Amino acid sequence: MTVAHPGPAVAARDVESAAALMRERGLRVSAARRLVLEVLFATREPVRAERIASGLEGRFPRSDLGSVYRNLETLEQVGLVRHLHLGHGPGLYALADGRPSEYLLCESCDAVRVVVPAQLDRVRRLLHERFGFEARFSHFPIVGTCADCARRASAEQADP
Amino acid sequence: MTVAHPGPAVAARDVESAAALMRERGLRVSAARRLVLEVLFATREPVRAERIASGLEGRFPRSDLGSVYRNLETLEQVGLVRHLHLGHGPGLYALADGRPSEYLLCESCDAVRVVVPAQLDRVRRLLHERFGFEARFSHFPIVGTCADCARRASAEQADP
Repeated sequence: MTVAHPGPAVAARDVESAAALMRERGLRVSAARRLVLEVLFATREPVRAERIASGLEGRFPRSDLGSVYRNLETLEQVGLVRHLHLGHGPGLYALADGRPSEYLLCESCDAVRVVVPAQLDRVRRLLHERFGFEARFSHFPIVGTCADCARRASAEQADP
Repeated sequence: MTVAHPGPAVAARDVESAAALMRERGLRVSAARRLVLEVLFATREPVRAERIASGLEGRFPRSDLGSVYRNLETLEQVGLVRHLHLGHGPGLYALADGRPSEYLLCESCDAVRVVVPAQLDRVRRLLHERFGFEARFSHFPIVGTCADCARRASAEQADP
């Protein structure tokens, strides 16, 4: 969680090609490391380290949480994994790919909305025109209130 | 740093009116607490707890860092102080006021650009139209690459 994105992202097709890449870089593919990859390929969505350690609630063998974190860190240094931050909460980990997903995080209900980067290109363009700033929402999401929570809040205001 | 914004923001004119508000809420205004307020009013910009503890590099008496954090937490619960998150780095603390500032954080050089919320209203409107999402950039900034770092990176690419 404290590692900035270290190297370029590497997209692997499956667990075997990810494992082959690890060995090319001179890294061991221990059973624990392979298990982390298997879980990430099985979910194909960003997950908390705790869910990986739980083996996706028992679908995979359970692992030690500390070892999951260490293996995620190694996989991230290789470029196979990326993490993102969820406000005050724990981070999420996902397989890296060519163009990462971007995220909107609701501070009220913690819901994470995954969006393809093209959907935020107009926002990015505006920020670039105005501030010369190149925004990315893959590592730190856009934070605010989702449509459901906004509706609920305004209904409560209207009829407390 | 782990406290979500707890109560409504309260803008205080100066240290004395902030101290009066604390007493109204039944809170003691210890010398340590007053010192944190004095530093925040002196800088008028978001600062790290470490800078407060250093007395702004000696302009004010030094304080114990743990006590600074505890006092910031109390001031935040009262609504006089707000924190914001800086990517992987430490948080910043600032005096609360009616309409908070919003922030752009450069992941390359850690520069924080403070913007008035109106400057991000078009971005906010776009996000609302597209996703029904109400974005705020006061607590978690927009993260990316600032104009200077983007220029430097493209100059290096052109002439490595």
